[in-house]
This record gives sequence, C-alpha cells and structure tokens, in this order.
Amino acid sequence: MKSDLDALMQDKSLDAILVIGNAEHNPPMYYLTGGGHVSGATLIKKRGEEAVLFHQDMERGEAAKSGLKCISYSTYPYADLLKQAKNDPALAAAIRYQRIFTDMGLKRGRVGLYGFSDVGSALAVIDHIRRLIPDLELVGETRDDSVFMKAMETKDEAEVARVRKMGKVTTQVVGRVAEYLTGREVREDEILLKEDGTPLTIADVKAKINLWLAELGAENPEGTIFAIGRDAGLPHSTGSPEDLLRLGQTIVFDIFPCEAGGGFFYDFTRTWCLGYAAPEAQKLYDEVKAVFDKVMENIELDAPFKNLNRLVCEEFERQGHKSPLNTQAPIEGYVHSLGHGLGLNVHERPWSGLTATDDNILKPGVVVTAEPGLYYPEKGMGVRIEDSVWIRPDGRAEILAEYPYDLVLEMKKWKK
Amino acid sequence: MKSDLDALMQDKSLDAILVIGNAEHNPPMYYLTGGGHVSGATLIKKRGEEAVLFHQDMERGEAAKSGLKCISYSTYPYADLLKQAKNDPALAAAIRYQRIFTDMGLKRGRVGLYGFSDVGSALAVIDHIRRLIPDLELVGETRDDSVFMKAMETKDEAEVARVRKMGKVTTQVVGRVAEYLTGREVREDEILLKEDGTPLTIADVKAKINLWLAELGAENPEGTIFAIGRDAGLPHSTGSPEDLLRLGQTIVFDIFPCEAGGGFFYDFTRTWCLGYAAPEAQKLYDEVKAVFDKVMENIELDAPFKNLNRLVCEEFERQGHKSPLNTQAPIEGYVHSLGHGLGLNVHERPWSGLTATDDNILKPGVVVTAEPGLYYPEKGMGVRIEDSVWIRPDGRAEILAEYPYDLVLEMKKWKK
Repeated sequence: MKSDLDALMQDKSLDAILVIGNAEHNPPMYYLTGGGHVSGATLIKKRGEEAVLFHQDMERGEAAKSGLKCISYSTYPYADLLKQAKNDPALAAAIRYQRIFTDMGLKRGRVGLYGFSDVGSALAVIDHIRRLIPDLELVGETRDDSVFMKAMETKDEAEVARVRKMGKVTTQVVGRVAEYLTGREVREDEILLKEDGTPLTIADVKAKINLWLAELGAENPEGTIFAIGRDAGLPHSTGSPEDLLRLGQTIVFDIFPCEAGGGFFYDFTRTWCLGYAAPEAQKLYDEVKAVFDKVMENIELDAPFKNLNRLVCEEFERQGHKSPLNTQAPIEGYVHSLGHGLGLNVHERPWSGLTATDDNILKPGVVVTAEPGLYYPEKGMGVRIEDSVWIRPDGRAEILAEYPYDLVLEMKKWKK
Repeated sequence: MKSDLDALMQDKSLDAILVIGNAEHNPPMYYLTGGGHVSGATLIKKRGEEAVLFHQDMERGEAAKSGLKCISYSTYPYADLLKQAKNDPALAAAIRYQRIFTDMGLKRGRVGLYGFSDVGSALAVIDHIRRLIPDLELVGETRDDSVFMKAMETKDEAEVARVRKMGKVTTQVVGRVAEYLTGREVREDEILLKEDGTPLTIADVKAKINLWLAELGAENPEGTIFAIGRDAGLPHSTGSPEDLLRLGQTIVFDIFPCEAGGGFFYDFTRTWCLGYAAPEAQKLYDEVKAVFDKVMENIELDAPFKNLNRLVCEEFERQGHKSPLNTQAPIEGYVHSLGHGLGLNVHERPWSGLTATDDNILKPGVVVTAEPGLYYPEKGMGVRIEDSVWIRPDGRAEILAEYPYDLVLEMKKWKK
C-alpha cells in the first residue's frame, strides 16, 4: 500500500524517488498524483517526506488537484537554462534538474528513477545529470520489482472498490456483447449477420465493445482480445478485424479496460462457441474449467503465487497437455503463466511465472487474475477462462465480478 | 518521411537505432511496425538495412502483421538468461540484448535509443549493457529533435489522408456536441438541463464526447479539454467535471483524438458562448479571430514556424495583451506558442516556440496546428481558436477539417 513506500525505499537504500512523465497512463505518477491532465511533470519524494510536484505553468490548475505541494517549472526560466546549456535541450533539462535537486536539498544520495516516458530523452538527460551531480547516484529499478510495484501490490479498500467497479463495467459490456451476438440472424453457411444483412466482423464487434466501454466511463488503452478460430489458439492474438463470426468456433474474449484517464484496470476472459461446440472444443473447455475450479479451491493464503501456477501445470500435464513445467516455451497446450496482479497496471505484482521470486505471495490485499488456458492454433482452437480475485483482509478469495461460465451461447434465431 | 530515416541516422552518426516498448501508443514503434497488440518488443534497424522485430512468442501472430522480419524472444530462453544473470532480471535482459546485438552483427558502433516505456527498467538494463558491451555506444536522443521526430515531421499523402480522416471524425463529434448543447432546456438561472431535468455537467458532456469518439473509431488517450469560465482561462485546464454549463460563459473546447490503437491524431479548438456573449468576451474573441486570420494569411512556405509565432506575439501586444515576446512566462494574455506539428504524436516537430531552432520550418509535407489564444483566468474567461493545417506539396496551406467559427451558439429553446 501507498503507506509502505517509505519502508520500501529504506529497504532499497533510496534517499529519494524521482518520477517523470504525464499523470495519466503512467502508473507511478498516477499513484501519487491521482491522475489529471498534468504532462511532462517531475515528482520528487524524499524518504519520510511528502512528494513535491514540478509542473508546466499552464497546468497549475490541474497540478493543484493532486493535493501535493506544487512548484511551476517557470521558477527555473527555460530561456536562461537553454542559454546556459548553449542551446542543448537535454543539458538545459539536466541543469533544471540540478537546480530542483539543490532546492530539494538533494546534492548527494541515492535516487530511484520511475515513470513511463520517452526513454531516449530520459537517457540523454540522465547522462548529463550524472556528470553535473556526481555525488547523486541516479539508479533505474526494474519495473517489475520496483518500490512502486511493491507498494501497489496490496490495495486498500478504496482501491479495491475502484477495481470492483471496473469489474461491474466489464461484465456489463460482456453481457451486452453476448446479448448482441446471440440475437443475430445466421446465414446458411453459419455466418452471423448484421442488422443490414451483411456478415458481422470482428471489427464490428470491437467497435461495439469500445462504444459500450466509453458509455460506461471506461477505456481500453491496451485494446481487447476478441479472437476466433486459429487466432483463439494464439493467446495474445487480438483477433483479425476482417474475420467473420461463425457458429461452433471457439471465441476467446479477453477484455481489460481501465477507468478513463488511466486509472484502475479489470481483467476478464470468457471463451464462447456460438450455437454449438464441436466435441473436441467442449472437451478442451471442460479441461480448462476443471483446472480453473481447482485453482479457485486451492488459493492458499500467504503462499507463493507460483505454487498455484505449478499446480495448474501439473493438472494440465496430467490431462496430456504440454506446459512450461517440462517444456521450454511451449507453443501448444498451456503456454503462459496462471495470472498476475492487477491494479493501475494491467500486469503487476504478484507474478505467478515459474521463475517468479518467492516473495510474490497471495497475501491479504492483493488482486490477481486466475486465467488458465489451452491453445491449439493448428486445430483452430483455444480456450481461456479468467476472473480477477481479491484476497480479502480476512483471507478469503473473492471474485470481484461474477459472470456465468457457459461455453455454448444459444442463438435465439437459429436451431441446429 | 520514413524514407529519410537512413539519411537522418547518417547525420547523427548512428549505426543503428533501438526502439523498445509496445507497438501501440508508442510513436517510434508504431511508425515502423504499424501498431497492433505487440508488447514489450525490441526493434533494431541498422543504417541502410530493414528493421528486425524481436517479440514475445505469444504475440508472433500480431508481430508478423508488421511485415518486418520477426524473431521470437524464445530464441533466447529466459530461464537460461536468468540463471546466467544470477536471477537479476535487469542483467538477464541486458544479456539478451547482448546476444541480440551479436546476432545482428552489432558488437560496436553508435546506437540511438527510442520508445515510450518504463524509464527505470530501461536505465537499469542500459547500465548493464554499457558494462557488457563497452564498444557499443548507446545514446539517448532528445525526443523533440530525434531522428524519428525529424522523419515524422513531413508526411506522405497516405499519412495525411489518415490525419484528414481523424479531422472529419473530430469535427463530426464537435458538431454533435454543439447540436446537443443548443437543444437543452435552460433553467431560470441560465443553467443548462439534461433530459431528466437535472443540471448538465462538464462530466456529462465529456462522457458524450468519449462515446461519440468511440462510435467513430477514435480514442482520446490524452483526454479532452472542455473548460468553462475561469478554467477556460487556464489553457491546459481540462475542465472541472462537476462544473455546470451556464449561458454566456466562454467555453474552450480543445479536442485531440487519435485513431484507435494509438495512430494519427487530429487537434482542434473552438471557443463557444451559449446563448449570448458578454461584450468583453466578444471583444476577446474578435481579437483572437483577427490574429487567427492573420496567421492563415501569413503562412510562408519554407519559413521558420517561429516567425509566425513572433507575428502573433506582436499582434497580440499591439492589441494590449502580454506575450512571451516581452514577458517571461506570462500567466495572462497570450501565454503559449502558436502551434506544433501533428501526427503520431499530438505534439511533434516542427515547433513554433520563440526558442525553437531555425530548422523548424513550414516545408511541404508538414501538418501543424495554428492555435492563437488569450487567457484571463481572473476575469473568468479564455479564448482559443485552432485548426490543423497541411502544407501541401504545391506549397498551399490547407485546413484539413473545416468547421464554422461562431462564438455564440444560439439556444433553440431559450430567448434572451
């Protein structure tokens, strides 16, 4: 939780943290500012002290909404900086950092760097800062294990409430998609038709998804997976826009929207067959569902998340599928890990991969996805089932948005 | 244009470029891959050679759509890398880069770094790469002057067609907003009402904007400015969600959506007063419109963009307003620069600020915004007018999406 930041900084011997970039779609900056239209900002937090936000003068109104102490960049007039830097903008930016650090009393010490921003600009400026302030050790932390990821790993109830609300939005949209698809007319060759009698495409379905998400105050900055047939067998294929919707084929629908402005995410997957399922697809689905249920029954409080992933590997291998447990980077069978933490990042700690460190544990306050799946692209099919789960303070695991698990969606205007 | 990349690399003595991050919402990666759900990828282009895309194995289908030579990260098994790196993920990533560079024949030389990604992770990995491959000089280029920004600065006709299409989407949405607002009932205290009789808020209007953008295949990753009254006087205030819509106040509506998935942007602003305008607001508007018209008449082919900005400063000062020409960081009057290039970045070269370098010129193929404005937050008003303009191959300046310039929008159900 946010209140853990100082202790985490202490653990990593950081005297201060430096966050750069916009407030939106930039989780560390959003975490400390609450978002808003603040662009190209600089946030500095010394250990044990409140954060200070440096911002463009034009955005002082938006910056003030953060509730942080705000200082305008105009305190360090750019024309002067540029002159001193002989018109080198990277050096000018570095000199501004030097003055900011001086004003913050940071002439030496260890400072961690964070934020989603332009890496080329950042490197150019950092190389200058290192020359200008040799006693300041500016270090990059690997994102997946950074103090931010560790603080964000556990959520307070207000944060979980926001994830839950996105879960409601997500399942509402999924319900509307199911309602829309099952209401379509079906051509003789089992292709779904739009209201105007032309074939329905993946692109059409995605346009509806985007519309309904926007209507409910969400956005999907990382897209939506709606993949049919062979594409469903490729776990991160988002689906081919021109593909038609056909009865009987597996559709993997993985939707991971966030609050508008880059806030909290939800993550959810169902696999559907419209009208009917081939016996082979039904069998694959039943195997995944059995493993999914096993996962839900075996969530063990304070155990490493990867233990659960290992259990999934073993179960799938027992069913006769390949998994990362005994096959290096399999491309058929169970080809990914069980899940991941979920919050301001669609993927965050705790991690469940077999190589994850032991401190990725299912402790109270984490929100994780459980998303076992089986993929056979050459057979033109794939199945994944995913819910997002909160480990409650009382230790119970709670699915944050309930939704039915049917594989086959009955078509209202079609009979086999 | 993209075909200029090799020559630009030569100018900057770059033997190769290294682009990291996702394909979406990451302009340099999008520019060379065409977007798609490719995450955490690495693109390397040696000067004079085609780019090669390294990607997660699960995303091989999406990666292939780029048309580039694609190599899966599974070529460099992660478990082995992690073992060699003694479980340090940043070092493991650096070792993978070392192998990739070796396979690309890049054991020495000068390599520029690009992409929108996590700066902390990037720095941690770069510090390791620099130790592992001392003969490889890995440099950050300031984004605003990078080879990418210089290549992207001029657009081919296919790229302009995409900006123009976003312009049509933008003006269509603006038209719907105007239609919606002017059709509202008005309370006695001049507050606009929703269909259900409760007051209309900025948040309601923004929800409609998001909905209509999604419906037309666009997204607004950087938000929308819809600011009324005092907020309109703060150029980058996005508007307070709870603010009510009131007759007679200046509303600055600045909308800058992009193609879904992080493609080409459009950028557009109108200032409206609903029902009527106070004489002071009308005067402010007329002053901005006069300067806007002057800008349109004075676009000089192959001249530095900042010359036009200087003209704007002079015109506004002649009208009695402050400008950056003679006031350092003014907070009233004309407080920003005239405009900026527009493409895969909402802000890109050429730049128009008074400190911009002389090579930011209005040459054929650039698409720039022209957005003069005047701001008086203490008087509760602000005005900005903005169109996006293409400098055509024949040298003519063309507004890419026409829309009327009325300040006062007549309310259909209200008379003064």
